[in-house]
Amino acid sequence: MTWDVLTIIGTFAFAISGAIVAMEEEYDLFGIYVLGMITAFGGGAIRNLLIDVPVSTLWEQGEFFTIAILSITAIVLFPQNLLRYWPIWGNLFDAIGLSAFAIQGALYAVGMGHPLSAVVMAAVLTGSGGGLVRDVLAQRKPTLLRNEVYGVWAALAGMFIALNIVQSPAQIFILFLFITVLRILSYKYSWYLPKRTMKR
Amino acid sequence: MTWDVLTIIGTFAFAISGAIVAMEEEYDLFGIYVLGMITAFGGGAIRNLLIDVPVSTLWEQGEFFTIAILSITAIVLFPQNLLRYWPIWGNLFDAIGLSAFAIQGALYAVGMGHPLSAVVMAAVLTGSGGGLVRDVLAQRKPTLLRNEVYGVWAALAGMFIALNIVQSPAQIFILFLFITVLRILSYKYSWYLPKRTMKR
Amino acid sequence: MTWDVLTIIGTFAFAISGAIVAMEEEYDLFGIYVLGMITAFGGGAIRNLLIDVPVSTLWEQGEFFTIAILSITAIVLFPQNLLRYWPIWGNLFDAIGLSAFAIQGALYAVGMGHPLSAVVMAAVLTGSGGGLVRDVLAQRKPTLLRNEVYGVWAALAGMFIALNIVQSPAQIFILFLFITVLRILSYKYSWYLPKRTMKR
Repeated sequence: MTWDVLTIIGTFAFAISGAIVAMEEEYDLFGIYVLGMITAFGGGAIRNLLIDVPVSTLWEQGEFFTIAILSITAIVLFPQNLLRYWPIWGNLFDAIGLSAFAIQGALYAVGMGHPLSAVVMAAVLTGSGGGLVRDVLAQRKPTLLRNEVYGVWAALAGMFIALNIVQSPAQIFILFLFITVLRILSYKYSWYLPKRTMKR
Repeated sequence: MTWDVLTIIGTFAFAISGAIVAMEEEYDLFGIYVLGMITAFGGGAIRNLLIDVPVSTLWEQGEFFTIAILSITAIVLFPQNLLRYWPIWGNLFDAIGLSAFAIQGALYAVGMGHPLSAVVMAAVLTGSGGGLVRDVLAQRKPTLLRNEVYGVWAALAGMFIALNIVQSPAQIFILFLFITVLRILSYKYSWYLPKRTMKR
Repeated sequence: MTWDVLTIIGTFAFAISGAIVAMEEEYDLFGIYVLGMITAFGGGAIRNLLIDVPVSTLWEQGEFFTIAILSITAIVLFPQNLLRYWPIWGNLFDAIGLSAFAIQGALYAVGMGHPLSAVVMAAVLTGSGGGLVRDVLAQRKPTLLRNEVYGVWAALAGMFIALNIVQSPAQIFILFLFITVLRILSYKYSWYLPKRTMKR
């Protein structure tokens, strides 16, 4: 139940983030909906491909599709109202989505008996793969690969789960809060990972 | 039989459109063939992945591969002759391809018992997914997501089929003509979907 | 045994090439590791998808993962030392990787009874698909599609194997040397495939 609420919040935040990027790139209505849906569901689709879950399980998530479509419709109809406070709650919701999706992806992979590397990959892709595809389709350098700390938190969630440090529902919920807070701090205080730039 | 002719026309048009984009981007001969093949077959490959059809069914389409390769070879050898009239028949053939591929993709998904969302997605990806991958590999903003109405017609075809409004071969053929004409009109009269641009 | 050594050399070269591109694009540490891993394993993953091998076989390659991670760590820690001689041995190792991966991909596809087209595709994607995804994620025009002859040699390896011209271990090793040398010559003497540029 709690988990469903978190997934709904994440779906909402990811769908809207895709729609916003599409609007910034001057894509049309079709592009706005497509990019919103891909951001919300693309990460899970790629994860399914990479750990041999039938991808079509995606199509059984009817209610989440509806939520994503309604979210995109809301931002299309009332962009000003919704976006005025986006810097405040938009990043909060996105952090919830990253954390909830990453943990869900990792649990999925663990349940299938995959090794550490696959679990971490599943956590990262479920949490941030949708945003990666979104950026590629918007012809942007993926923010996942260069901006404030983001994917690392998803990887960390995957490690905690793969190494069985976190197992009971209560532990998993604490992990969820922990990862969410870390992501919010990264954003709020602009935590960056080091870079090793090279002149070409 | 009719269906095979339409698929051939679509394969021809899509392969050539990929080759043209590659030439415009100054890709080499290898790039021209790769982009042509991906535009012709990429949409079907992604659709197969997303609805759990073994992707390797792709490799049984030997004759269509031959058609795509011959088409690309023709445009490489005689670009001027073929391209002089491209604005006239190129868009016609592309519209036929969009319509035929979208309907074929939707029928495929319906035959596997997938719900509406999957059928619409299969129609859109089969009809226009190859062009999407083409644009990503050519480092262009996907025309599918921003130019004249294109993907919406594929989605419409998917809806008609998923909702069983269209079932008999005759009805399917009428749907094919209908979608083709809508796409041609979109192109000819520059129908655009509304946008909601946002200043970054 | 020999084969393992060649795969190790290829994994090393591909992982480092991904990390270098990430550094050039000013990606952060997370981006450097992700791009390195994707370059080393992305080609094999896409090939598996396209010839219906369970993608999760990827996750059983634990030791190659370790090699890739160590290689990326080395280039992050000691970029100057390693890169000083990169023009000399970097391209040699990359050629070995291309050749070994292409042959391995083709053998894989032949073993599954796929036709010529699939075998050639498997050779090309296993040999150069990782670099293709790397370039897309770095927002670059894929070097595979435009620079000196590269993918063609992978395709040639695929043809030799699909047509059973090469079968015994000794023949396969000769093919490996042959393809490696061709790639090195392409690089050293700047062999280019012809282009057919079009003014837009």
